[in-house]
Amino acid sequence: MELLVPIDTQSKKPLYEQIYEYIRGEIRAGRMQAGSRLPSTRVLAEHLKVSRSTTQMAYDQLLAEGYIGAVPCRGYFVGHLETLVEMETLPEPSRAMRMQEEEDEEEISGRATVDGWIDFSPRGIDLDSFPYNTWRRLSKDTLVDDNKEFFHSGNPQGEPGLREAIGRYLHGARGVNCRPEQIIVGAGSEYLWMLLGLILGTGHRIAMENPTYKQAYRVFHSLGYEVCPVEMDASGMSTELLTVSGASVAYVMPSHQYPTGIVMPVGRRQELLHWANAGPERYLIEDDYDSEFRYRGKPVPALQGLDRQGRVIYLGTFSKSIAPAIRVSYMVLPEKLLQIYHERVGFYASTVSRIDQNILYQFIERGFYERHLNRMRTIYKGKHDALISAIRPLEDDFDLQGERAGLHILLTDRRGRGEKELIDRAAAVGVRVYGISGYYIHPECNHRPCTVVLGFATLSEAEIARGAGLLAAAWSMC
Amino acid sequence: MELLVPIDTQSKKPLYEQIYEYIRGEIRAGRMQAGSRLPSTRVLAEHLKVSRSTTQMAYDQLLAEGYIGAVPCRGYFVGHLETLVEMETLPEPSRAMRMQEEEDEEEISGRATVDGWIDFSPRGIDLDSFPYNTWRRLSKDTLVDDNKEFFHSGNPQGEPGLREAIGRYLHGARGVNCRPEQIIVGAGSEYLWMLLGLILGTGHRIAMENPTYKQAYRVFHSLGYEVCPVEMDASGMSTELLTVSGASVAYVMPSHQYPTGIVMPVGRRQELLHWANAGPERYLIEDDYDSEFRYRGKPVPALQGLDRQGRVIYLGTFSKSIAPAIRVSYMVLPEKLLQIYHERVGFYASTVSRIDQNILYQFIERGFYERHLNRMRTIYKGKHDALISAIRPLEDDFDLQGERAGLHILLTDRRGRGEKELIDRAAAVGVRVYGISGYYIHPECNHRPCTVVLGFATLSEAEIARGAGLLAAAWSMC
Repeated sequence: MELLVPIDTQSKKPLYEQIYEYIRGEIRAGRMQAGSRLPSTRVLAEHLKVSRSTTQMAYDQLLAEGYIGAVPCRGYFVGHLETLVEMETLPEPSRAMRMQEEEDEEEISGRATVDGWIDFSPRGIDLDSFPYNTWRRLSKDTLVDDNKEFFHSGNPQGEPGLREAIGRYLHGARGVNCRPEQIIVGAGSEYLWMLLGLILGTGHRIAMENPTYKQAYRVFHSLGYEVCPVEMDASGMSTELLTVSGASVAYVMPSHQYPTGIVMPVGRRQELLHWANAGPERYLIEDDYDSEFRYRGKPVPALQGLDRQGRVIYLGTFSKSIAPAIRVSYMVLPEKLLQIYHERVGFYASTVSRIDQNILYQFIERGFYERHLNRMRTIYKGKHDALISAIRPLEDDFDLQGERAGLHILLTDRRGRGEKELIDRAAAVGVRVYGISGYYIHPECNHRPCTVVLGFATLSEAEIARGAGLLAAAWSMC
Repeated sequence: MELLVPIDTQSKKPLYEQIYEYIRGEIRAGRMQAGSRLPSTRVLAEHLKVSRSTTQMAYDQLLAEGYIGAVPCRGYFVGHLETLVEMETLPEPSRAMRMQEEEDEEEISGRATVDGWIDFSPRGIDLDSFPYNTWRRLSKDTLVDDNKEFFHSGNPQGEPGLREAIGRYLHGARGVNCRPEQIIVGAGSEYLWMLLGLILGTGHRIAMENPTYKQAYRVFHSLGYEVCPVEMDASGMSTELLTVSGASVAYVMPSHQYPTGIVMPVGRRQELLHWANAGPERYLIEDDYDSEFRYRGKPVPALQGLDRQGRVIYLGTFSKSIAPAIRVSYMVLPEKLLQIYHERVGFYASTVSRIDQNILYQFIERGFYERHLNRMRTIYKGKHDALISAIRPLEDDFDLQGERAGLHILLTDRRGRGEKELIDRAAAVGVRVYGISGYYIHPECNHRPCTVVLGFATLSEAEIARGAGLLAAAWSMC
């Protein structure tokens, strides 16, 4: 297949994105047949007179979104909605090892190494790089005497200015379509789930991916929902199992499933929307908790952006991208639920201080948030690459997963060892790793091969390298 | 109706806000008649050459604040001033956040007298005397680089230091007996009521004083509780009626009932405790929302301090004593419910930023809170006395109630006039007062003689005197 991608070198749009968009358009329009082979990244690069990394980025993005599949030693193929599932399971092309360019002069600090432990916790974020000065300055500017206004009670949904800023960010960065009036700002995701419970009512069955984010499970359970754990395949939640579960609400993390790291391909997203559209009161809760961090291509747009019938409730948070302690999350309600919100719980006062809302508003509006995200992406990419490179010695014994995005990876044992054995041996050399069983709604139902989760956000690159070395030594002996 | 909104496209003020402010001003000034219809958002947008979302946002804000109403399929209408009674418990007017340099001084100062109105709102507090410098300094001290700790997630119940400080304050000032472990800090009372709902479960009938704090009623109702309004006599909630109501939980404000101002005598408190002790799962929710301000005698200790059998759930807030916008309230659970809290919802993350918790902790621990309270007591006492003295001319026609504590008083008419008549006559001279009907769970069940509520916190002593003079004149003529 020859691809005549029209390239506009005068455009502000990056070249890879032009290529990505062109091919995606061709596939969507049916002009590229499912199963047909794409030119290699090298051939396409020569043909279009662009660098190979440009074509690679375009393909990576198409891969991430499920438009194409990759078969090792054979190349790239146009995806088929049905076969996308299988193609997703194929291992990704191996990645070049990143040279550790700079000596890490970071001292051993932070909670990740308290008591000499190296803790590969998948929770927590890197706070060494937080822009304390900026935050302090914005805080100071907000707390001037003539800003008395901020000490009065504010808008129950959150201040309009902040909601506009969040709406603009979500549209640009995540492809979310909404008016600021659809956004509700709240003090953390748990609070917004509670509020959502009051909007939806609790007479529903709620389906959750299994394994999942246990905190969400605990909240839904505590609210009185009957939670149906639904198994996943390589593309995410099985829509067949979802359909038979009898659930009317499904909680999913399409951009980066926690903890498996699965990025849901577009085919499965459409199946989920199809499921939601098939019933009168079906909703999808899309938790986009860490969409800010991806290491290849541009972020996969949110499921919400594909929704045409108001079936997706979108949730996001600043806990990962700024700090957990600031306690600001947000929820985007489809119009119908927004109406119910106003009728049933619109009178609930906002749970976020107006002072804090203004600091955050200024942080976003003045461009600090964008800069901070870019900085954190570079820092996390460095840590991510350091971890991928440091676990090389383990690659004969483990399969690597979930390495395209987020703040953790997964290692699945190929030698039939048990989770507890791996965790205990790691602990014996002062390294903490986490078994995937802990993320199962019913851990006894975990039939997945032994898998451990390694987070890297709170560790320095030096700690990551040292920890991975200790793991390699500890696990080679069993 | 045609609306000629002057739009300044050079202004930094968002367009929607210009539209919102213009219409609000017209309504307040009486230039737009109650009940008259507004142009549709589409028509207005075309007329003003702005986007429809801009006019929609302006209308939404006016709707949220009650200046206009919406009738499905018919459009938007200018609101009636009388409906402000109903609006009274809704959130206060809020405005979009603006850049500091755009702040309009006139708008910010003296919100109670915006556009010449004298608003005896019983909500709101005096923020002119807020210690902005201290708060800013504490905030700055908290946000230093080596306080990274405060950006990590914290204790779900609230930081231990803050809980200890609250516990000490409650013991010393309110006679509350508790360990810091029994205290849960949350982002506002509504949130804590929600959490309490999950602890108690919703299979209860909950008794509430009538009239009451409608926001609490709305929350309990939205949580699915069956709410039984229980009439009060001069000592507060009738325990006889409570007993026959079949309720197992009673929500009361013994220190200063809202809105009647009744201070429950110790005999009635003991009767309530006796009622609670007589059943295995009976609880009293004591909302001590404004106990800080008393003008006669020594403060009445909290009901919780008399409880020997763990039947009282104590709630308090910093909304009245510091500022509504800081969003910090607290709940003291008896041991048995504390255990249930840990089992069912102990995993819910705190809703208050750790940074804010530390600022508040420092504010209390370094003695600023005590000083601030003393200062505010003096200021409120001055306003209170100014009001009592200024309404002297009304004493032949009205009975005065609720004058011992809090931030409002009640005037009950002796001459058989109606609430609406008094409110309308006050409005005609630019003074806003509030009818007690608005505080009834079912306003049609209000058989109390016509009573109006006058708050004084947000007004200056001069405004109070002027407002009371206008009232005396307006009411002497009917």
